Amino acid sequence: MAKLKVGIINVTGYAGVELARLLYRHPKVSLSSITGRSAAGQKLVNVFPHLAEIDMTIAAELGEVDLAFSAMPHKSSAEAIMPLVERGVRIIDMSADFRLKDGSEYPKWYDFTHPAPNLLRKAVYGLPEIHRDEIAKAGLVAIPGCYPTGALLALAPAVEEGIIHTDIIVDSKSGVSGAGRTLSLSTHYSEAVDNVCAYSVNGHRHLPEIVQELEALTNVSVSVTFLPHLVPMSRGILSSCYASLKQGTIGKKDEVIELYRHYYKGEPFVRVVDKPPETKQVWGSNFCLVYPVVDTRHNRLIVISCIDNLVKGAAGQAIQDMNIMLGFTETEGLEALPLYP
Amino acid sequence: MAKLKVGIINVTGYAGVELARLLYRHPKVSLSSITGRSAAGQKLVNVFPHLAEIDMTIAAELGEVDLAFSAMPHKSSAEAIMPLVERGVRIIDMSADFRLKDGSEYPKWYDFTHPAPNLLRKAVYGLPEIHRDEIAKAGLVAIPGCYPTGALLALAPAVEEGIIHTDIIVDSKSGVSGAGRTLSLSTHYSEAVDNVCAYSVNGHRHLPEIVQELEALTNVSVSVTFLPHLVPMSRGILSSCYASLKQGTIGKKDEVIELYRHYYKGEPFVRVVDKPPETKQVWGSNFCLVYPVVDTRHNRLIVISCIDNLVKGAAGQAIQDMNIMLGFTETEGLEALPLYP
Amino acid sequence: MAKLKVGIINVTGYAGVELARLLYRHPKVSLSSITGRSAAGQKLVNVFPHLAEIDMTIAAELGEVDLAFSAMPHKSSAEAIMPLVERGVRIIDMSADFRLKDGSEYPKWYDFTHPAPNLLRKAVYGLPEIHRDEIAKAGLVAIPGCYPTGALLALAPAVEEGIIHTDIIVDSKSGVSGAGRTLSLSTHYSEAVDNVCAYSVNGHRHLPEIVQELEALTNVSVSVTFLPHLVPMSRGILSSCYASLKQGTIGKKDEVIELYRHYYKGEPFVRVVDKPPETKQVWGSNFCLVYPVVDTRHNRLIVISCIDNLVKGAAGQAIQDMNIMLGFTETEGLEALPLYP
Amino acid sequence: MAKLKVGIINVTGYAGVELARLLYRHPKVSLSSITGRSAAGQKLVNVFPHLAEIDMTIAAELGEVDLAFSAMPHKSSAEAIMPLVERGVRIIDMSADFRLKDGSEYPKWYDFTHPAPNLLRKAVYGLPEIHRDEIAKAGLVAIPGCYPTGALLALAPAVEEGIIHTDIIVDSKSGVSGAGRTLSLSTHYSEAVDNVCAYSVNGHRHLPEIVQELEALTNVSVSVTFLPHLVPMSRGILSSCYASLKQGTIGKKDEVIELYRHYYKGEPFVRVVDKPPETKQVWGSNFCLVYPVVDTRHNRLIVISCIDNLVKGAAGQAIQDMNIMLGFTETEGLEALPLYP
Repeated sequence: MAKLKVGIINVTGYAGVELARLLYRHPKVSLSSITGRSAAGQKLVNVFPHLAEIDMTIAAELGEVDLAFSAMPHKSSAEAIMPLVERGVRIIDMSADFRLKDGSEYPKWYDFTHPAPNLLRKAVYGLPEIHRDEIAKAGLVAIPGCYPTGALLALAPAVEEGIIHTDIIVDSKSGVSGAGRTLSLSTHYSEAVDNVCAYSVNGHRHLPEIVQELEALTNVSVSVTFLPHLVPMSRGILSSCYASLKQGTIGKKDEVIELYRHYYKGEPFVRVVDKPPETKQVWGSNFCLVYPVVDTRHNRLIVISCIDNLVKGAAGQAIQDMNIMLGFTETEGLEALPLYP
Repeated sequence: MAKLKVGIINVTGYAGVELARLLYRHPKVSLSSITGRSAAGQKLVNVFPHLAEIDMTIAAELGEVDLAFSAMPHKSSAEAIMPLVERGVRIIDMSADFRLKDGSEYPKWYDFTHPAPNLLRKAVYGLPEIHRDEIAKAGLVAIPGCYPTGALLALAPAVEEGIIHTDIIVDSKSGVSGAGRTLSLSTHYSEAVDNVCAYSVNGHRHLPEIVQELEALTNVSVSVTFLPHLVPMSRGILSSCYASLKQGTIGKKDEVIELYRHYYKGEPFVRVVDKPPETKQVWGSNFCLVYPVVDTRHNRLIVISCIDNLVKGAAGQAIQDMNIMLGFTETEGLEALPLYP
Repeated sequence: MAKLKVGIINVTGYAGVELARLLYRHPKVSLSSITGRSAAGQKLVNVFPHLAEIDMTIAAELGEVDLAFSAMPHKSSAEAIMPLVERGVRIIDMSADFRLKDGSEYPKWYDFTHPAPNLLRKAVYGLPEIHRDEIAKAGLVAIPGCYPTGALLALAPAVEEGIIHTDIIVDSKSGVSGAGRTLSLSTHYSEAVDNVCAYSVNGHRHLPEIVQELEALTNVSVSVTFLPHLVPMSRGILSSCYASLKQGTIGKKDEVIELYRHYYKGEPFVRVVDKPPETKQVWGSNFCLVYPVVDTRHNRLIVISCIDNLVKGAAGQAIQDMNIMLGFTETEGLEALPLYP
Repeated sequence: MAKLKVGIINVTGYAGVELARLLYRHPKVSLSSITGRSAAGQKLVNVFPHLAEIDMTIAAELGEVDLAFSAMPHKSSAEAIMPLVERGVRIIDMSADFRLKDGSEYPKWYDFTHPAPNLLRKAVYGLPEIHRDEIAKAGLVAIPGCYPTGALLALAPAVEEGIIHTDIIVDSKSGVSGAGRTLSLSTHYSEAVDNVCAYSVNGHRHLPEIVQELEALTNVSVSVTFLPHLVPMSRGILSSCYASLKQGTIGKKDEVIELYRHYYKGEPFVRVVDKPPETKQVWGSNFCLVYPVVDTRHNRLIVISCIDNLVKGAAGQAIQDMNIMLGFTETEGLEALPLYP
């Protein structure tokens, strides 16, 4: 049987190139078209020597495909996707353009008026652990942001089961690849090495996603303070989440681990661990490690999660969603174990 | 006038060697004796080639000095210090042995019964910004832990001025030198690089110090959840502190910066900044950067502080205290500006 | 058809654990036995959380297998292997114990008298690009050292084709994982980060391998000065090799690239490139990039090669050899593209 | 006595800002003017928060100074300097514009025709260990490049004493700050971390400096192959230099160390060491460590040197030259010991 054809719009960022790396080895699909903007016309190997095995040329326009991934930046992504949606091509969008259900959030957080607010309702938020069934049927899937992926997987069980007060702090530490391949002073090597800093202290764009999805799990509003930090490594996000336990919900320390294990039972990529996880333990893989623990001095729940921001936080999750959409085994093409050390 | 003689007990850890580096260039004292255990009898340069300028031999026993620094580990430090205190030598202890006022905390946190509980009351907690006057007169000063230094300088103004509810979260990110020079798997290069993890999730030894000092600032108890993280760099601690603002205390966003600036007015080493600070901005210096900001969505105070854990978090603070004890200008020997990039 | 059973002796070092990672996903063999010394009796996941997918217990003794990999240190490896060889188990040894043909080199370089000098002749040096046919028939294959792999692939074409004078300098830069998982001060994070140094300046143990194999390619002796350096990254070796071109052999600059391309034609894992390669371009993969260039000012050949020391320099090459020995496609289980960035 | 006034033209690069850091604490001069191009009009602290102690504004034009440092890029530097030279201001130029004696080299290596070839003869190459007396009297000093500083200090004794054949290989490993503060893909954090690569393989601009100065030490021509590599750390250069020993010049291994010690006797910043040096041992200091050793298998001299590229390789050397020019103690303002770890 002929493999389905897939394409990547804007392969030249870190998420795009990671998609190409993974899709090229996927047994059920064929990567048949890749586009770029400034790099159009170049052989992929000339821009990304590590992908020398993939003998493709970066095109200006997407060829005929059965399913397309967009790795465009926000705003441009919606523009690129809209005509494809009309033609009936199934789309997996890695930008933020279809993550938020409320179109009025876009001017606030992303400085543009959404061009297709009607599509926001149709788009599915592509976190399989929460929206698997909708993803299977979706024509347009919005891949969650890297921070929301880690934060939501850390918090969903506690929020949905109602064991915490919803006054939540998420303190995240991200590797530098999350800032992308576009040059900037803060991601210049000599500036970022030997350095830790917080950023977006007045509100990071991933905050409304986190709130939207947590509130959708329950019928109460949540108050999330989210502070991201840049740490000197290329891949990985560790999120430390804090919330007060409701009295009477969790009696003993081990109960919270049990609750989490039950919640994620059968999930191929979420592993509830009983020791503090490390980002290196997921490097290059689609796993998310989740570690819930109770600060018994103050009856506070702490949940720590780790992902590789470019895999479970971007390209890997996109392929997981594709597998669900196309009826493949969910782990297909994502079997590689983490690279260590 | 002859310079005062100072000595370092156990020069061979990272805090000890940093003390030697700084004291050797101090204009008012003479580093006349250094001791080590396994390295006794060796030239300093053979163990620490970067200190080749210092032509000294590591001794087994401390020589005659006017003031001694102890860079021994906890428990051993108290044992080494007690006879010196009796002889009237002024002591600056970098271990935890005289930081806690309540002797019953030592078995709980450090697994030993304190050998000189009476000295705990006499010892002064050596954070100059809070205890300057007592330090000036002290015979025994306990240098604060690296994490407490950053956390206390971030929180003291808010706690003392009573603008926050005392349910506080301190999420700290430390470079690896804080774990010392003793070998361990978690500080093996291949394990620590490209990696972030939380540790001591059930309670880090620096927690009781933070609580003791915050409670001493006010007459209410505080609930602190403190979670330290290891990040891949050698020096630096960034602490992100979270607490709810009391209603009515802070009306406008800038007021909190003003309150902090007023609190630290005249402090030579604390700088209240109006942009998120970075650990690299204090690398190799005794500065502490403090950045208070309000999450106006939820009326939450966030305070971020940065220090170099080996300078303001250890050896530099020890010299600052020595300067105060000996009546020198407080910045003497600590003038070097941060190394960047 | 039942998969062949393979085992790993001493899985607990970095080469062993990398073997486990790769073998677990190999489609044609089944990893059925793993041993360790101090870790015997523990679940693999407890020692290596990144391998949580592999539900195996580390044993004290190897079970029944069709082929065994030894990841023991030198000397111990020979001892562990000898009885297996007698039982007819095919062996792939990652230690140095069967790399050198001349048994008298072992006391000089490795401080022990070889216990089975007769096996040295039977063992095959497992560099497929040079010894593929012998590997196919071998009962005992010695995986080349990480440095020799990079150096030999850089130099073999020039030496065998006789275009250079055999007075050769190899200046290698290695990531820290090459020093293994055993703790040492020089691989302590705070010491190794932000640092570059040369080591083994009086002769590194990998030198006799390089000389043995280069001399076997031609009938003249070679003079190799080999200087390894430690650089702050976990994986990768870049070797810069220098030799004078014989007059009249290479007329134009491009000829040397052509000669190299011809030499490595059809090799699945050696890629001759025309821009300076970077270690990151092979991270996590079995590729070796080779870049030959001429310093036309002085008619000097420079060849730069890059490998991942744990893959092509150890576990990946071992699997490549296994594939050859067992008649599988040579790339089986080694298809993963390099991880970047 | 009023301090002499000094200024920095283009303070905003890494060499400029390092100069500011060091000059601000220099006891004999006053940093009275700093200029920048795009940053003109801004407070220094706003561009470089680590220099908050220095309360200065970046100006568009240099004020009245007794001596000026230029940290402009090549070509622009000559243009900025020429009018100052005419006004009799003493100049220390950190660019390449006055390093080469032969004006015809500039079009070849730097792509511009030198605007003041007559000044090239008057300018002094500012390596104090070779040109101290000329520096003392100079009106215009050209600070050596970072690579030439390390390479020349490694090779000068051997070349001047005539113990080696002058067919020399210099393999250098540099931290990323050497590439400056200007953004580029190869110095983007995610690209440079976990990576080693060679660059400028067809000839680096620092080569003609190395050749010029080595040839000036003797009356024979030298053949230097120089290959620089980028390694993932911010500061430091380690150069490994290789050359064949002339027969009969060095009988025993220790003689070469003795020869080097004698050559550098009394030099305040060059330390001949007897163990392989590490770049971290000079971090933040003006020291150069030099380690000569003989590969006795092939009678080859290996010399390894380490510097901090921003101090001895740029700003520190500039201040050392200033001290010589102004008759100060040569170490004034450069006493800080290396920062470690």
